Amino acid sequence: MPIRLDRRNADFATRFNAFLATKREASLDIETATRGIVDDVAKRGDAALLEATAKFDRLPLEAAGLAIGPDEVAAAVAACDAETIDALKLARDRIESFHRRQLPKDDRFTDALGVELGWRWSAIEAVGLYVPGGTASYPSSVLMNAVPAKVAGVERLVMVVPTPDGKLNPLVLAAAQLGGVTEIYRVGGAQAVAALAYGTATIAPVSKIVGPGNAYVAAAKRLVFGKVGIDMIAGPSEVVIIADATGNPDWIAADMLAQAEHDANAQSILITDDADLADQVERAIAAQLTTLSRAAIATASWTDFGAVILVSNLDEAAEIANALAAEHLEIMTVDPEAVAGRVRNAGAIFLGPHTPEAIGDYVGGSNHVLPTARSARFSSGLGVLDFMKRTSMLKCGPEQLRALGPAAMTLGKAEGLDAHARSVGLRLNLR
Amino acid sequence: MPIRLDRRNADFATRFNAFLATKREASLDIETATRGIVDDVAKRGDAALLEATAKFDRLPLEAAGLAIGPDEVAAAVAACDAETIDALKLARDRIESFHRRQLPKDDRFTDALGVELGWRWSAIEAVGLYVPGGTASYPSSVLMNAVPAKVAGVERLVMVVPTPDGKLNPLVLAAAQLGGVTEIYRVGGAQAVAALAYGTATIAPVSKIVGPGNAYVAAAKRLVFGKVGIDMIAGPSEVVIIADATGNPDWIAADMLAQAEHDANAQSILITDDADLADQVERAIAAQLTTLSRAAIATASWTDFGAVILVSNLDEAAEIANALAAEHLEIMTVDPEAVAGRVRNAGAIFLGPHTPEAIGDYVGGSNHVLPTARSARFSSGLGVLDFMKRTSMLKCGPEQLRALGPAAMTLGKAEGLDAHARSVGLRLNLR
Repeated sequence: MPIRLDRRNADFATRFNAFLATKREASLDIETATRGIVDDVAKRGDAALLEATAKFDRLPLEAAGLAIGPDEVAAAVAACDAETIDALKLARDRIESFHRRQLPKDDRFTDALGVELGWRWSAIEAVGLYVPGGTASYPSSVLMNAVPAKVAGVERLVMVVPTPDGKLNPLVLAAAQLGGVTEIYRVGGAQAVAALAYGTATIAPVSKIVGPGNAYVAAAKRLVFGKVGIDMIAGPSEVVIIADATGNPDWIAADMLAQAEHDANAQSILITDDADLADQVERAIAAQLTTLSRAAIATASWTDFGAVILVSNLDEAAEIANALAAEHLEIMTVDPEAVAGRVRNAGAIFLGPHTPEAIGDYVGGSNHVLPTARSARFSSGLGVLDFMKRTSMLKCGPEQLRALGPAAMTLGKAEGLDAHARSVGLRLNLR
Repeated sequence: MPIRLDRRNADFATRFNAFLATKREASLDIETATRGIVDDVAKRGDAALLEATAKFDRLPLEAAGLAIGPDEVAAAVAACDAETIDALKLARDRIESFHRRQLPKDDRFTDALGVELGWRWSAIEAVGLYVPGGTASYPSSVLMNAVPAKVAGVERLVMVVPTPDGKLNPLVLAAAQLGGVTEIYRVGGAQAVAALAYGTATIAPVSKIVGPGNAYVAAAKRLVFGKVGIDMIAGPSEVVIIADATGNPDWIAADMLAQAEHDANAQSILITDDADLADQVERAIAAQLTTLSRAAIATASWTDFGAVILVSNLDEAAEIANALAAEHLEIMTVDPEAVAGRVRNAGAIFLGPHTPEAIGDYVGGSNHVLPTARSARFSSGLGVLDFMKRTSMLKCGPEQLRALGPAAMTLGKAEGLDAHARSVGLRLNLR
């Protein structure tokens, strides 16, 4: 049964904290295995990559067969349904428009002393994009990762996707083409992450790796972090819905289940000040569940991790939403903006009854790669800045050095760094 | 002997790539030990933290003694040299002015369909700041981490600093006070990182941990990454200097040594199109080395990791600087801006002969926490954005949902996510 908590009960804090601490993923002890694979690819390159691909994807390949070339992509695109391609194009265009607004500005200014300061943004030259195989192979995620990278100005955008038994979703290749991916390789798992980080004879190394993956992929990303940049390590998806008596129980139930169908570890939480609505939503979920194609997954998610939290008022709802720091927050109340104004921690907020999260998943334009597992407390959804870096600039003339130099020398000496002090003093004829 | 490479030699590419691949840090196998400490603190809280502190810092404490309170800070500040405090204040004010310009803007717009989109930035509520003990305990680094956090709006800024044998640099406490740190605890190592990430009875948990540390601290940060946010894992410091015949060999030598004195693993590299200048710099380094208080460290760094790279022209210099992706890049040429314009990968650029890196280390205003070990290819120096996160916002009305809904349904179905499609279809009376 999904849990039900009531903010008005005396044991709420205890039960809520226990709920917050619930782990939704088994922590597998896969680090040793992952490290073995990563080290092997780092050392032996293509040979290790091919062996791992033969073993894990049951796909015997030679190095020449690693790349998925333009002909293969074109053939896949031709096999796709035209309506779906059109929907992907709409998504691509809207994602691009939204993310263009995130392009940061350079800054350059001269302060009162005449010191010139500022910074300059530039794109990362080469980025790897991991795309899972099998049922979690989503073309929409390809766009959500690729489009911001291209908007940022990334030149080399290298996609890796495993093709277990040689099978690949053609829509993933279509999304790669629409998203501006420049190279594609049919490899996955920790071995693909290692190939991107260290490079092989066939795959030139990249500087950053983004995209979701299974536990091995996540462990490999953690291992190569530092050698290359990585995005967040994604956990199972989640939605929090704040609703008052005006909420439509069927719509809310549908949104809860849209989350639950992702994964048995996904989580859907309703926070409401209306106990009747809570009951109605629970009944609507039970009714809708039976008709879903992924009913087994959604049922497991709802039963194991679903929750309804009753509150006295919407201020309390916002407070609880802040503690949950959800990946997705839907607000269906009389004044959703007012509630949103009190929420600080959330990956994305969907305002009002006509904004189901599924719109944001596909065609809203904002990014659907969002911080999970309460990490919205300290991190953001994927965006253009994740594909850029900032170089700071500093320029003094002789006068500015005379003005600032003595303080720098004082601090250098105080830190026991005499050569720091001397690099300034020499220029000023000071010791 | 420092290495000398010549871009005009036939074996340059091979030798340069070998040079790039040189590791400057032994990779210690400390992960198991670190994991033991982190897990222990996560499980047993204060008790484990106190035991580790007694063991590693030889400091027997009770929980009540963990915090460094305002009285102790005030006493430390009173004991500091007034000139140094003034220099720290100048640094603080300049860092604050520079970083205020980095505060990001929220965005909210309505597109052609009437969809409301945008995002909102907010500060991370609680951040932990790790400060090393002993000789690497730099008050300037406290300011460089604390000030951007305060500018961002972080409310709880929790500093941890080990006090081996009870010893602590009073200037570190002074910098904490000037930087707006709100809590200080006398703990360090992996145990301090774990306390910040998981919380103990005495130390409430934070959402992100920043600041430099030794290999144990770095390993602990890697372990808690995901549970909390972390900044980059810093490696040994480095400088690249591009100079032409106009470069002053004594000044260049002084700047190379200011880098080398940090750490035996630090690295100083000169790239020049003038072989005479290269010779003069090498001689000046030899002469200056003998007079340094940290001569042994600087000599080890220069001998083991120093390099001079000869090029035919400054375009080649910029190209090599891009490959090196240095933490610090000084440009001392006739037209430093022109060279800077061709450099894409660098943490910070110091323009012209009167901008020694030491100015940027202390009082320039830009941040001295910068990406090391070639990570400027994919990451930036510390800034205000590291202490904030972005929440995206999406709002459709019924018309916008009618316009976008069908494409979202098409993509949901194409991805096998029927409940996604239904969450839209139910609102549109579509299936």
